[in-house]
Order: sequence, then structure tokens, then C-alpha cells
Amino acid sequence: MTMKKLKWGMIGGGEGSQIGPAHRLGAGLDGVFEFSAGALDHRPDYGIDYGQRLGLGDRAYGGWEEMLEAEKKRDDRVDLVTVATPNATHFEITKAFLENGFHVLCEKPMTMTIEEGEDIVEIAKKTGNICAVNYGYTGYSLVRHMRAMIARGDIGKVRLVNAEFAHGHHADATDADNPRVRWRYDPAQAGVSAQFADCGIHALHMASFVTGQEVEKLSADTVSCIDVRTLEDDAMVNFRMDGGAVGRLWTSSIAIGRQHGLGIQVFGETGGLRWSQEHPNQLYYMPLGERLQVIERGEANLSPEADRTSRVTIGHAEGMPLAFANIYADLAEAISARKESRIMDSAANLYPRAEDGLRSMAAVFAVAQSGKEDGKWMDARPPMFR
Amino acid sequence: MTMKKLKWGMIGGGEGSQIGPAHRLGAGLDGVFEFSAGALDHRPDYGIDYGQRLGLGDRAYGGWEEMLEAEKKRDDRVDLVTVATPNATHFEITKAFLENGFHVLCEKPMTMTIEEGEDIVEIAKKTGNICAVNYGYTGYSLVRHMRAMIARGDIGKVRLVNAEFAHGHHADATDADNPRVRWRYDPAQAGVSAQFADCGIHALHMASFVTGQEVEKLSADTVSCIDVRTLEDDAMVNFRMDGGAVGRLWTSSIAIGRQHGLGIQVFGETGGLRWSQEHPNQLYYMPLGERLQVIERGEANLSPEADRTSRVTIGHAEGMPLAFANIYADLAEAISARKESRIMDSAANLYPRAEDGLRSMAAVFAVAQSGKEDGKWMDARPPMFR
Amino acid sequence: MTMKKLKWGMIGGGEGSQIGPAHRLGAGLDGVFEFSAGALDHRPDYGIDYGQRLGLGDRAYGGWEEMLEAEKKRDDRVDLVTVATPNATHFEITKAFLENGFHVLCEKPMTMTIEEGEDIVEIAKKTGNICAVNYGYTGYSLVRHMRAMIARGDIGKVRLVNAEFAHGHHADATDADNPRVRWRYDPAQAGVSAQFADCGIHALHMASFVTGQEVEKLSADTVSCIDVRTLEDDAMVNFRMDGGAVGRLWTSSIAIGRQHGLGIQVFGETGGLRWSQEHPNQLYYMPLGERLQVIERGEANLSPEADRTSRVTIGHAEGMPLAFANIYADLAEAISARKESRIMDSAANLYPRAEDGLRSMAAVFAVAQSGKEDGKWMDARPPMFR
Amino acid sequence: MTMKKLKWGMIGGGEGSQIGPAHRLGAGLDGVFEFSAGALDHRPDYGIDYGQRLGLGDRAYGGWEEMLEAEKKRDDRVDLVTVATPNATHFEITKAFLENGFHVLCEKPMTMTIEEGEDIVEIAKKTGNICAVNYGYTGYSLVRHMRAMIARGDIGKVRLVNAEFAHGHHADATDADNPRVRWRYDPAQAGVSAQFADCGIHALHMASFVTGQEVEKLSADTVSCIDVRTLEDDAMVNFRMDGGAVGRLWTSSIAIGRQHGLGIQVFGETGGLRWSQEHPNQLYYMPLGERLQVIERGEANLSPEADRTSRVTIGHAEGMPLAFANIYADLAEAISARKESRIMDSAANLYPRAEDGLRSMAAVFAVAQSGKEDGKWMDARPPMFR
Ligand SMILES: NC(=O)c1ccc[n+]([C@@H]2O[C@H](COP(=O)([O-])OP(=O)(O)OC[C@H]3O[C@@H](n4cnc5c(N)ncnc54)[C@H](O)[C@@H]3O)[C@@H](O)[C@H]2O)c1
Ligand SMILES: NC(=O)c1ccc[n+]([C@@H]2O[C@H](COP(=O)([O-])OP(=O)(O)OC[C@H]3O[C@@H](n4cnc5c(N)ncnc54)[C@H](O)[C@@H]3O)[C@@H](O)[C@H]2O)c1
Ligand SMILES: NC(=O)c1ccc[n+]([C@@H]2O[C@H](COP(=O)([O-])OP(=O)(O)OC[C@H]3O[C@@H](n4cnc5c(N)ncnc54)[C@H](O)[C@@H]3O)[C@@H](O)[C@H]2O)c1
Ligand SMILES: NC(=O)c1ccc[n+]([C@@H]2O[C@H](COP(=O)([O-])OP(=O)(O)OC[C@H]3O[C@@H](n4cnc5c(N)ncnc54)[C@H](O)[C@@H]3O)[C@@H](O)[C@H]2O)c1
Repeated sequence: MTMKKLKWGMIGGGEGSQIGPAHRLGAGLDGVFEFSAGALDHRPDYGIDYGQRLGLGDRAYGGWEEMLEAEKKRDDRVDLVTVATPNATHFEITKAFLENGFHVLCEKPMTMTIEEGEDIVEIAKKTGNICAVNYGYTGYSLVRHMRAMIARGDIGKVRLVNAEFAHGHHADATDADNPRVRWRYDPAQAGVSAQFADCGIHALHMASFVTGQEVEKLSADTVSCIDVRTLEDDAMVNFRMDGGAVGRLWTSSIAIGRQHGLGIQVFGETGGLRWSQEHPNQLYYMPLGERLQVIERGEANLSPEADRTSRVTIGHAEGMPLAFANIYADLAEAISARKESRIMDSAANLYPRAEDGLRSMAAVFAVAQSGKEDGKWMDARPPMFR
Repeated sequence: MTMKKLKWGMIGGGEGSQIGPAHRLGAGLDGVFEFSAGALDHRPDYGIDYGQRLGLGDRAYGGWEEMLEAEKKRDDRVDLVTVATPNATHFEITKAFLENGFHVLCEKPMTMTIEEGEDIVEIAKKTGNICAVNYGYTGYSLVRHMRAMIARGDIGKVRLVNAEFAHGHHADATDADNPRVRWRYDPAQAGVSAQFADCGIHALHMASFVTGQEVEKLSADTVSCIDVRTLEDDAMVNFRMDGGAVGRLWTSSIAIGRQHGLGIQVFGETGGLRWSQEHPNQLYYMPLGERLQVIERGEANLSPEADRTSRVTIGHAEGMPLAFANIYADLAEAISARKESRIMDSAANLYPRAEDGLRSMAAVFAVAQSGKEDGKWMDARPPMFR
Repeated sequence: MTMKKLKWGMIGGGEGSQIGPAHRLGAGLDGVFEFSAGALDHRPDYGIDYGQRLGLGDRAYGGWEEMLEAEKKRDDRVDLVTVATPNATHFEITKAFLENGFHVLCEKPMTMTIEEGEDIVEIAKKTGNICAVNYGYTGYSLVRHMRAMIARGDIGKVRLVNAEFAHGHHADATDADNPRVRWRYDPAQAGVSAQFADCGIHALHMASFVTGQEVEKLSADTVSCIDVRTLEDDAMVNFRMDGGAVGRLWTSSIAIGRQHGLGIQVFGETGGLRWSQEHPNQLYYMPLGERLQVIERGEANLSPEADRTSRVTIGHAEGMPLAFANIYADLAEAISARKESRIMDSAANLYPRAEDGLRSMAAVFAVAQSGKEDGKWMDARPPMFR
Repeated sequence: MTMKKLKWGMIGGGEGSQIGPAHRLGAGLDGVFEFSAGALDHRPDYGIDYGQRLGLGDRAYGGWEEMLEAEKKRDDRVDLVTVATPNATHFEITKAFLENGFHVLCEKPMTMTIEEGEDIVEIAKKTGNICAVNYGYTGYSLVRHMRAMIARGDIGKVRLVNAEFAHGHHADATDADNPRVRWRYDPAQAGVSAQFADCGIHALHMASFVTGQEVEKLSADTVSCIDVRTLEDDAMVNFRMDGGAVGRLWTSSIAIGRQHGLGIQVFGETGGLRWSQEHPNQLYYMPLGERLQVIERGEANLSPEADRTSRVTIGHAEGMPLAFANIYADLAEAISARKESRIMDSAANLYPRAEDGLRSMAAVFAVAQSGKEDGKWMDARPPMFR
């Protein structure tokens, strides 16, 4: 299958940024997106200079407004804009690009408030433009396969999901005042939640992604293990989903000895599944009453969703850049299908959307509020979806 | 060091019982306890017959009352009685033996109510007899070492404990009516809690054992994933400990794909530890800012507590029967020291006690109540210790 | 099933010995063997003192000859004698006890020469007494199951076995002169081979045990990685078996980072199997064209050989002392069956025999010779079995 | 650091080929190489069509000769040509491009004979053009780090290397006649060796790469486990290296249950290292007398060689496409440095070279010959390097 090259632009992700390189790897991997424009840094001159070094030429802009103005006038305007700036700027930038006819992939968390989230959902709906949210871990081939297995009934009705995203990278009290760490636990900069909003929502979204169920209500126990922190560095969240599943989610940034710590276990009436981001090429499956089996990425006869997202032969590790690339591949297919006025490949129709970003926001506020109220159960749905 | 042989008796643990063989393995392993008397079955004739086949001769009794009467008259009366009968009978039997001058090792849960638990604690105190409770997993050499490391400050002040005991052995809805499974989820027979009272308390006790802290309050989310059940088959418990540690505990019997599922992670200010019952001969340790290390059972220069409980050379697996044996070895030392009017080896003074059994009971009721009240935080301490 | 208690005696295994405690654990575990007599130390007084402390009374002897004389006159003479002395004494002691009507369990290597091995085989045959050899790792439940699976055809005709016993405990050159290490690499004391004779033969015997095939010829590459050593500390052995299987075996004592390192992989026409001593409760199985499965010790519907040797419920680790205990359980059954003039349980008829000890001797000499002759292929069979 | 885009071309790797996509992923990943030209298929029309679909326009050629003619006339000729055709064509194509001034990355095995290999080495030397060989697994960040650790003495003098590349993908006898499998074991098409030439050389090269030592002599035991095969599907190779290291290498294609099976263990005087391709983001390290440690890809303070090849943050898996990308990144740096007349970054100067490809060829012939001569030790060096 041929695919016409698409043009891609980026806001944020400047030199030295954490997530910028992963986006460039992911978007570039298949050679479908051409990196064509960007406003990469909050310092205009740095952004332009870096953009030029990355080959953007005069489409290396000093700021996102400038980029928006310039790009919307071009015939060869970018087909997709990734927003990888700090959280507080996502809403404004995403909104502006959507309203001006661009498809957007926004980093998580999509917005800072539920209201902003609802706005984005409505703008996306109204304009018809794609607004995807980068829950990039859902791009892993075996996460896709997990979803497909559950959807086709391999483990029966889902009873319980147990998700984790617990690492130890903010465990050093002597480093807690380091500005690169401190802002995350400061409500003035980070909003109502730290660790849950940063990592927990990945795990919560994954719970929805693989089960095909949405979170309805939740109860949270949030704590700050390091004194100087206002926001939580550890949280346990219990939740209930609209298909009847019970949920449990642990997230932490003080779990010394754990490097990343994203993982998920799903238990249904007739089987159980287990997957972990640090070893993403194996999926553990036990059909009720049988033995634990190891499903390998790339093995024969998996689901179309798994096949589409598997790029090298079995036994060879695939990693996180390929998971990101799969999100971009979904978007390339979605955008191309629109351009070509055809129905998109349903196995690609799995990129997380504005609705998911909004739901995460609602969950963040519910967690923060429940945490303050001794674990009171809260409606976790955005008002819009109640 | 020589040790005079001690005499050991058993109530329950009849032919075909689940836990009986593990006790006989554990008690017999070091050749210190001689299996000398027993009332092994609720059916007198079966119990006598089986006891005789196990070599008890005329000290194979038809019932525990008969055994108590006979043994207390003997000069060579048993030094220790293990109570391994169904839960509802523990209190009565344990009480009777303690009051008549016997040391007792009671299976968990020690009693059915908090009041009974407080009674046992007081009787033990009053009589001066040992009342141990079989949280046998604390006998593992590396669990002992974990405790020693934390006590000596290897991970600094403990911030958070995350314990699990989640398996999948009651996940089959079509088997839920099987009498061997059903009674566990029936309040008439099992009391106020099923999975937490059966497995959760092992994990909760282990959290206390390794941190040296006691649980003060807790909040629980309990669910029955299978319709016909009244009591919970899955629970998440958040708790707080008296040394300031935050706790999280997940227990389940519907987690298909997990065979046993007892494990514990402890995170302190300067390090993290992780251990799992299914691979008990490795303890994972990360000092803050360094690398994950693998501590092996039997390696040189571990703590006295680890050395005492390690029986074969490094690299050879030790399993659960040896963990049980370590509890018995503690008791042998405790009893011998009393007989010999000497101070016992402090590294052996680690067997779980009536106080621990009582605390578990208080936790069981707190979990059950919190579960009913939407996770309301409950005092988890027995009234006696408030 | 009742079993009349059997009486057990031991030569060697004195205080502080390496393997003595494991034998006492293993023999005592089921309560079938009563530890009744012993000549435990090469220093008569130490042996008597220690034996008395272990409860042997006047059956604690100063030497094996004395023990033999005394025991053979008793009506209640020991039913089984374990020989756990240094290698060079095995032959003489084993021979003497066999010839005087005792059953013997001899530590490996059974003898120092092939001729001695053939002698033992013939004496055992002539006298009709049991002469077992302690390849104790074959007692693991899942090793038994592996054998059963292969025997019943679960992996088809065996093509290739790959066995390893490679650890790093003699890797420290600065410790190589330590007398406790040095003798092992000194031909005057250790014979023609060090690491292969000490560890390699366990792996080689296991290859035969699980496949049911015997080694016919072999080629070895032996090296001493530490200068002061004369004998090998690392060897690779290629071999061929009488059922057509190809074999590969690596043994090392300089493999830093490996704690024990015994493991085996077997590949047949229709499946593959993998097991490792350090995690002995899982057996990995892949039927051709299907997925890797995890077989758990203690799971339902395994072979009779596995069931018989599994003692605690699934998910609980069993370790090396239980593997040894299984060898003793085999012997208890074999001896009891003889006493009771009945056919023994065929699932217990798996203890390694004098023939196996002899075959190992032949392999040791073949390895040593091949190592000297640049890997020349050598007949690995004892002359008796050619 | 900016890097001017380089132009990249490919021979072979047509639609449906096994390794083509991995090259395009790897070369494209950093956006440094622009895929500009190709002769992708042995069927001219298919190659042109596919090349055009991949965006090559009129630089999609019908054959490599045509491509060579056309490209050498262009000012913007490709900077690097990857040769990913079947083995028998590598020599001719590589030679032609080198001689015409192109840098080449040739797939392994570089040639079919030692003589051809020597030719390539000489041509590369004479022309001064880069001839790299795609031992792509050496691109993994932690393999690079292993090399750096050994080079700086972290494990002392290397005593022994144990390498494996054993999988089970050609184990099905009923599929052995499948043309896609059969040619590999047919000397007419595959040359003197099957499994060793295909997989074994990766492991052997890795042994050299990480130790910095070259293979001098070897002895091999080669077998065909499936009757219809002429060439080996399993081989054990013992070898000696020029720095004194002993080597052992097992390669197999009948090892059912193993998916990929490339791994390496290195044991030195003061430490041991272990790495496996299926979980490439962890490197296990034990300093003599200390504990096993887990080195994580991306951790702080690794070697420059590791840092350069690590692309996403710690805890996120990186996989094989990134390893390939690292080879391409080395080449980009090497080519750019030449263009810019500067010294290249020494941490990038690690791509495998024609000399390595030649050494592999010599090893292949030595293995084949030794296999035929009962494991006779053979000189494994190419005549040129003796
Ligand atoms: N999906 C994931 O797995 C994942 C992982 C890490 C970060 N993130 C998200 O990505 C976003 C960026 O995180 P990061 O860790 O890379 O942050 P960072 O601070 O490392 O980098 C932010 C970059 O954005 C640039 N920037 C800031 N304001 C800008 C503006 N107004 N216009 C243009 N550029 C601007 C900065 O100069 C910088 O280069 C955050 O929202 C974060 O939550 C997501
Ligand atoms: N510590 C642990 O890890 C662990 C594990 C399993 C069970 N247990 C506990 O052990 C106890 C027994 O559990 P089980 O699974 O072995 O039960 P079981 O039902 O398998 O066996 C109970 C045994 O007690 C005998 N018995 C019952 N009433 C008796 C009486 N009045 N007098 C004498 N014998 C009597 C029965 O005949 C039977 O032999 C329970 O309290 C359970 O919670 C603890
Ligand atoms: N099967 C296994 O896995 C395994 C493991 C370790 C050792 N072994 C074997 O067990 C045997 C003993 O090894 P070890 O490591 O325990 O040795 P050790 O040196 O630690 O102990 C030997 C014991 O035998 C006693 N002894 C020596 N000569 C004696 C004699 N003539 N009479 C009575 N006692 C005597 C010594 O006093 C000492 O107590 C060796 O043959 C060894 O190969 C087997
Ligand atoms: N480095 C590695 O890890 C690795 C892995 C797999 C394969 N390989 C090597 O890569 C090479 C290709 O292997 P493959 O498995 O991709 O083979 P393949 O048969 O799947 O593909 C070969 C491709 O080359 C094309 N081709 C054949 N002859 C050609 C010619 N004369 N001109 C142009 N194109 C031609 C074919 O049309 C096909 O597209 C082999 O040398 C193999 O050993 C290396």
C-alpha cells in the first residue's frame, strides 16, 4: 500500500526537552510524515535555530501564533500538528489549531480543567478535525492485542482491572527542591494533582482502552511522602467502569527500585491477562482452568490490531518509539482516509481522542477531590458525559 | 549446639486436610520436635486411626478435650500444641490448652471475633504460656532479612508499603457452588470476611512484620466478583501505620493467571525492597541513587535473622516447608530457653504472637465495616491497644 | 497409607560439613526414616560427640568400621546407610556395607575409578542390596514430570539436550590457594577432573534421567581459567546418546554472577522443555507450533511421578531439601516393598543407582582424556556396558 | 549538533522481504538519512514500482547495475548504499559500489568465500570507502556499554565468553521441505553452513565486539537434527581468542520454545556480565564478591558509547529497530566526519567492518570443516590476518 507523504509540525519539543525526541522518532519512523514546520521552544530564537538545524528552513517559527498564521496560508500546510509544550499551554494551542483547520495530536494532560476539556471535545466535533491525545503506550502491539482479545471475548466479561504506574524517580528528598522536580508538586504550576495527573492517567486510560469500558466513579487515597510537597506523590485509586468492571490503580513516584512501572492486569470470567511496559513484547494469558501462556509480539495469527502495529519479526524487541510510531501511523491512516474520501482501516482507528483526554481531566479532579475528602466516592465522568 | 527433643502435638490436620502436612513437615524438619500426640480429625475414629498410622500410638486421641485431659496428666506431656482446625474452633481449643499450661501455635485467623482475640492475648499474658500464630510466610529467610535491613535503617524511614496476596483459585463461577469453595464466601460459616480474612491478613501481617510498625487505621473497597457470593473475593485496603508509613494492600481470589500472589514492596527514604513468595530466594534491593541488586538467600554476611533461617547453601532453592520450619525453630528455641531458664536467641524471637492474631482480627472487622460504608476510614486497632 | 518407620544411619556429614544437613533434612522430612546411627566425622571423638548431640546415643560411633561391626549384630540394625564422606572413601565404605547386607545411598561421585564403579555394580547385583547414588536434583517434582512427559511422548523423539551446571564460586584467583578450594583442582586429591566430576556429572546424569537415554560417546574442551590450577574449572562437553539424542553440556566454576546454574533444555520433534534448579517450581513447555506454557509444580493432572513428589499446594515454593527428601522417599518405598514382599510403586522407582554412578565415572574419565587430546571423541560407556 | 542530511540508497529489501523494513526503519529513524534511491527487487518492474511507492521517483531502479550507473553520474549521488539482497549477491554488488566511490553497508554474511572477503577488505582499504557489515545487534546501547565496561577493565582480564543464538523456528520436520526453509540447508544455495552462517556468526561477532578480542582457532560439533537436511541446524563451537579468552558458542534452529535466543555472558577475573537480545534494556553485572546488579539502558553515568546509543528515557523499552538505527547513526557520523574533514566521534566508531565480515567467513569455513572432521581444531583466521 502506498501512502502519500504527509506534512507534520510540532509545537514544543525543543532542544533538551524530554518528550520531543520521542515524537520525532515516532512521527518519522515510517517515513509517512515529513517534519515540515515547528515552533519548538518558548524562546523564539532558540526555537528557530533548533528548527533550522532539524531541517525546517523558514518553517522554523519563533512561536506557535506565528506558525499558525504562516501555515494556514500555505497550500502545503502541515497535515498534523503535535502539541508537546508544558501542560498549561495545551488548551490554547490545541484550540487555535483545531479552529483553523488543522488536525492535532496533543500531549497529555490535554487541558488543565474539565471545562477546557469539554471545549476541545466540542471544537473537534464542530470542526470535524481530528484531536488526538498522546496516550502513547496504547500504541504497543500487545496492548492493541489485549484490547482485541477482550473485545472478542477471550477472557469473558471483565471483572477486574488492576493498573499500575509506579516509579521511584522523585524519591530523593534532598532533590525535592530541584526546580525540575518541584514544580510538579506545586499546585500553582501543576494544578490539582501531581503524580496522578502525570502518570496515573496513562494507567487509567489504558484500563479503559483495553477493556472498552469507561470509568464512572472513583475513590482515591492520595499522599505526599515527602514533606515539602503539597501535591501527591503516591495515590491509590479504586474505580468502577460502565461495563461493570471493578478497577484498582496505584501510581507513585517514590517507589525506589522501579524504573517505569506501568503495567496492567485484567481478570475476566474465563481468563486473565497481564502486560508490563518494561517488557512489552510478551503478554501473559491464562484461560480459566488452563496454563499460563506467553503471547509474543509478532507471533502468527494474532489480531489485525496487533499485526498492524508489529514491525519486526518475532523474538526481536520492539520498544516505546515504535509504540509512539503506531499512534502516528493511526493518524496517518485517519488523515489519508479523509483526504482520499475512504473509510479508514478500522484496526488503525484506535488513537486516543479528545474525549479520552477529557475523561482523564474529570478523573484528575475526582481523584484530587476524593483525596481531600478521605476517599469519598466521586463521579469521575465529565459533566458532558453524565 | 544440642537441643533436647521437644514433644509436639496437633489438633486438626487430619488425613486429606490442606495444611496438616505442611505443619508436620515444618515441625519435623529439624528433628527437634517429636510428633507425640494428636486429635487430628473431627471424626474421632478417623482421627485415632490416622494418628496411629502416623505413629502416635495411644496418644492418638478422638477429640481435643480427650487429648487435653490425657496430656495434662502426663509427665512427658507435649511441649507445644498446634491448632490447625477450621477457624471457628481455634478460640475454644487455644484457650483451653493455654489455660492448662500448654504452649500453642494456632493457625490463622486466631479467632472469629476481636473479643475472643483479646481474651487469648490476656490468657497468654496471665498464664505466661506462648501463644504463637501461624503467619508462616514470615519464616522465609529473606523476609527475616528484609525486617532486619529495615530495622537497621538500610532504606531509611519507611514511607510506603505495598503488599499483595492475589490469586485466581476461586475465579470459576461454575465452581462457586462447590461446597469446598462456597463456605468461604458464606457469612454463616466464614464470618464477616472471606478473602481478606483468609489471605489478606497474611499480607497485612507481613507489612507489620517487615516494617516493625502496626496498622492504625484503614479504608477498604471490597467486592464480590461472582454473583452468588455474599462475602468479598477481592479487596483493596489502604492503611496507615504507627510509624508513619502509608500502606496499600490488594487481595483477590479471582485473579486468573496468578498462582499464589503474596508479595511485598517497601519504600523508604533511602531505598526500596521487593520480595515475592513464589520466588522466595531472591530479595530485590535498590539503595537510593544506585542500582537494583539481587540479594540471594544464603549469601555471606546477611543478618543473624537471615542466617539462622537459611538451611542449605546459596543457589539452592528453599521453599515454604522451610519457612514453616523456621517458625517451629523459633518456638523450639523459645520453649527450650524457658526450660533451661536462659534468655532466648533474639534472632529467633520473631514468631508471630497472639497480639498479631488479635490485630489481624481487628483489621478483618475494620475491612468488613469499611467495605460496607463506602471505604470509610476505620480504626484498625483492637480496643485493647487503642 | 501407613509406613513402618525405617532406621537410618550416616557415615560422614559431621558438624560443619556441607552436605550433611541436607541429608538429615531430606531423610527426616517425612518422618519415615529415624536417624538411628552414625559415624559422622573422621575424628572419632568429634563424630561421637556430635552424634550424641543429634540424639544417636550409643549408636554414635567413632568410625565406619566400628559402626559396621556393631550394626550388623543388631536386630534393629539400620535399614539404610548414607555415605557422605569425601570422595576417595566412598568405594571402600559403600562396598563394605553392601557386602554386609545394608542398603546404601552413596554420595556422588560414587567411586574414584571406573573399576571400582564396576565392582560396586556387581556387588549390588550379587547381594541384591540397594545401592543408590545421590543425584539429588533428580528428586525435584518437575524434573520427574519432565521425565514422564518425555517418556510418554509429549515432545516426540528427543533431538537435542542442552544441560548446564555453571556457577562462579571458584572464580576468585586470590582465593585459589585457599585449602578448601585448592584440593578440588589438585589431581593428587581430586583425581582426573575437578569441575566436571563435581558438578558436570549432575547435569550429565540429569540429561540421561529426563530423556531415558544413556551417553555413548563424548568430546570435551576443558580449561583452567586460573593459572595455579591443574584440573579444569570450565568444560564444554558434546555427547551422543543411545536413543539418538545429541547432547551439549557446559560446566564452570568461574562464571561470576551465576549462583548455582544447573539447568536443562530438551528439544524433541514436537516440543521443547526448559527447567532450572534456581526456580524449580516452573517447567517451561512449548508444543511445536503453539505457545510457551508454564507448568507449575503441584498443578492438577500432572504425572504420577510429579504428584508423588509434590508436597505442598501449588504456588508455594518447594526447594532442594524436598528434592533430597524425594530420593529418600523413593528409597523408603523400595526398602519397605522388599520388607513387605510386594512390588514397589513404579513412580518411586526412580532413585539413581550404582549403574548411574558407574556411568558418571566413565564419563569423567572420558572427559578428562578427551580434554587432553584436543577434544577427541571418546567412548563414554563403562567397559561393562559396551 | 546539526547534521546535514545524507542520501541513502538500498539494493534488495523489496516488498515482502524480511530485513528490508528494518533497514528503512533504522536508516530513517533519526532523519539524517534520506531514502533517495533503490533497486529493491530482483524483478525490475516490482522493484521500480515499490521504490516509487516508497517515494524514490525516478531513482527507483530496475537493477543494481542500472542504479550504479545512474547514481555515480549524479552530483547528489547517495552517500551510503545498503546491500540487503540474498547472500550470494553481496560480494559482487558491494565490490562494484565500493569501487565506484560509494560507502556500503552490506548485510551479513558479507561474502560466500574467504577469498571474496579478502577482496572486499582490500578494496575498502584501497578505495578508502567505508564498507560496513550489518551485525546490527551490536548497535544495542547495552551491548555498547558492555564493550566499554570490558575495555575499561570493569571485569578484569576476560577469561571466558559464552554466546548463544539458538531458536526453534526451523524445528518442524513436516515443514522442512518448504522452499523458504529448505534452501537454507542446501549446500548448493547456502554454501558450507546453514545455522552457523546465518545466526552463529552474529553471536561470534558479538563475542569479539564486546571483548575486543579476535577468534584465533575453533572446534565445532555440527549436526542436522532433521533427516532431509544436509547442512547443520545445530552447532556447538569452542574457540580461543587472541587476548587469551576461551569461547563457547551454541547456535540452533531446532530449539523449540526459544523465540530468538541471542545472548552473551562474559566472565573476567573480577566480574561477570550477561545480556540477552530478547530483553535488551537490562545488563546483568556482578563484580567479584559483590551482588548481581541490574544496569538499565538510559541510566545516568553510563559510558559515552551507551549514552550515544540511548534514545528514550530510562524504563522505556528500546528495541531492535533502534539498534539498527545506531549502526546507521555511526555511519552517518563517519560519513559526515569525512565530508567535514574532521575526526569522527570515537564513540560512534563502532560499526562492524569488512574485516569483521571477513573474519566471520573464515569462521564459517572453519566450523564447517571442523564439523566434518570430528571437531578438529582449525585456524579460524582469514589467511590475510594470520
Ligand atoms: N505521553 C507521554 O508519555 C509523555 C511523557 C513525557 C511528557 N509528556 C508531556 O509532554 C509535554 C512536554 O513535556 P516535556 O517533559 O517534554 O517538557 P520539557 O519541559 O522537557 O519540554 C517542553 C518544551 O516545550 C517548549 N515550550 C514551552 N512553551 C512553549 C511555547 N509556548 N511554544 C513553543 N514551545 C514551548 C520548551 O522550550 C521545551 O522545549 C507535557 O505536557 C508532558 O505532560 C508526555
Ligand atoms: N498459615 C497458612 O498459610 C494456612 C494455609 C491454609 C490453611 N490455614 C488455616 O489452617 C486451618 C485449617 O485449614 P485447612 O485448609 O487445613 O482445613 P481442612 O478443612 O483441609 O482441614 C481441617 C482439618 O481439621 C480437622 N478438624 C476439624 N474440626 C476438628 C476438631 N474439632 N478436632 C480435631 N480436628 C478437627 C478436620 O477433620 C480436618 O482434618 C484453617 O484455620 C486455615 O485458615 C492456614
Ligand atoms: N549431591 C550433591 O548435590 C552434593 C553436594 C555437595 C557435596 N556432595 C558430596 O558429598 C560428599 C561430602 O561432601 P561435603 O562437601 O559435605 O564434604 P565436607 O568436607 O564438608 O564434609 C565431609 C564430612 O565427612 C567426614 N568424614 C571424612 N572422612 C570420614 C570418615 N572416614 N568417616 C566418617 N566421616 C568422615 C568429615 O569429618 C566431614 O564431617 C562428597 O562426596 C561430595 O561430592 C554432594
Ligand atoms: N542482520 C540481520 O539481523 C539479518 C536478518 C535477516 C536477514 N539478514 C540478511 O539480509 C539479507 C536479505 O535477507 P532477507 O531475509 O531479507 O531476504 P528476502 O528473501 O526476504 O529478501 C531479499 C530481497 O532482495 C531482493 N533481491 C534479490 N536479488 C536482488 C537483486 N539482484 N537486486 C535487487 N534486489 C534483489 C528480493 O527481491 C527481495 O526483496 C540476507 O543476506 C540475510 O542474511 C540479516
